[in-house]
Amino acid sequence: MKKAIILLSGGLDSAVTLYQAKKEGYKTFCLLFDYGQKHKKELKSAVKIAKLSKSPFKIIKMNLPWKGSALLDSAISIPHNALENIGKNALPSTYVPARNTIFISFALSYAETIKAQAIFIGANALDFSGYPDCRPDYFKSWNNLIKVLGIKNITVKTPLINKTKKEIIALGRKLNVPLKYTWSCYAGGLKPCGKCDSCKLRAKGFSETGLVDPAN
Amino acid sequence: MKKAIILLSGGLDSAVTLYQAKKEGYKTFCLLFDYGQKHKKELKSAVKIAKLSKSPFKIIKMNLPWKGSALLDSAISIPHNALENIGKNALPSTYVPARNTIFISFALSYAETIKAQAIFIGANALDFSGYPDCRPDYFKSWNNLIKVLGIKNITVKTPLINKTKKEIIALGRKLNVPLKYTWSCYAGGLKPCGKCDSCKLRAKGFSETGLVDPAN
Repeated sequence: MKKAIILLSGGLDSAVTLYQAKKEGYKTFCLLFDYGQKHKKELKSAVKIAKLSKSPFKIIKMNLPWKGSALLDSAISIPHNALENIGKNALPSTYVPARNTIFISFALSYAETIKAQAIFIGANALDFSGYPDCRPDYFKSWNNLIKVLGIKNITVKTPLINKTKKEIIALGRKLNVPLKYTWSCYAGGLKPCGKCDSCKLRAKGFSETGLVDPAN
Repeated sequence: MKKAIILLSGGLDSAVTLYQAKKEGYKTFCLLFDYGQKHKKELKSAVKIAKLSKSPFKIIKMNLPWKGSALLDSAISIPHNALENIGKNALPSTYVPARNTIFISFALSYAETIKAQAIFIGANALDFSGYPDCRPDYFKSWNNLIKVLGIKNITVKTPLINKTKKEIIALGRKLNVPLKYTWSCYAGGLKPCGKCDSCKLRAKGFSETGLVDPAN
């Protein structure tokens, strides 16, 4: 059976990606990261979802000894209006430098070790925060780098890359993803703040789908 | 003053690379990794060299929850004859899957954060162990990936890539690198084992230079 590493944050997109990989016939191995994020609560969601999907999972724990992102730095508030600035050539303060690059490099290490054929990541570039490491060309570059390394049969896959949040939610429902256990909020509270980019994008998606968010 | 991140292992190559970057006019910021390597002793060398070069340094501590490399796994002995198999399409057992990829991704995160222009890595592809993540095309792919990300002015630099060990040692002497504090041995003992690939490559270099290794 072909194997895939799934980068699982515990959010909506990565959960749908996990179930999509299963639908495509992969045996799924989830990779979670404890990197100092304020919303560490997402890890509990990720563990729950990995278990529900019957996927083995591993957690990488690391320190990122530089700050500078609102997701890491207690001195920087989570912004409430960053989505308005997408495309204005400014990175939102929630951007964590090279985060997806770090995550994919660990996934590559895991994939090489267990001889997996694919790395799945739930990035999408439509209803998103404008992060440069979520765009299609970035993932093409990764696949080029892996090809140059000469490690055969490992492909970075982004099944959601061109989907809107509405379409992602619809796919999640079709695949019976346990959406009620997913966690999207950046703010690190006990309940979703409803104000950060991630909460807003999620709410927009559910609103467009005409569904009530089962996590609320 | 332009800034550079230096991937500093504590070995000979990375120490020479650090001093080369300084010679090229960079303010140098060293990045060290505590990743479960048997030869953790190299970190003490790295700290010593960073301090001697008056470079700030940071240590990334992480767990790699998969084994499979002789550098990580106590069940696998450090090989003594892997150099004989270079080019025979087999990875040596000391290969750590995606190690340089992980290291460079952290360096990219650090470089973005402090607005550095370069990442220096002491990889070389002549007197080496045949690792695929030490070859020139691999680093070209990194520079392409960084370019696609749209993060300007960060370049991965490999000043030793086409140098023999003999040439690296000669350069180190010319740059007054404190070679006696560098640590190359993979085996994790109190003194270099003299039998692993890394010890052998180092001894070959000093022998060809006609110098006594100051670390012995």
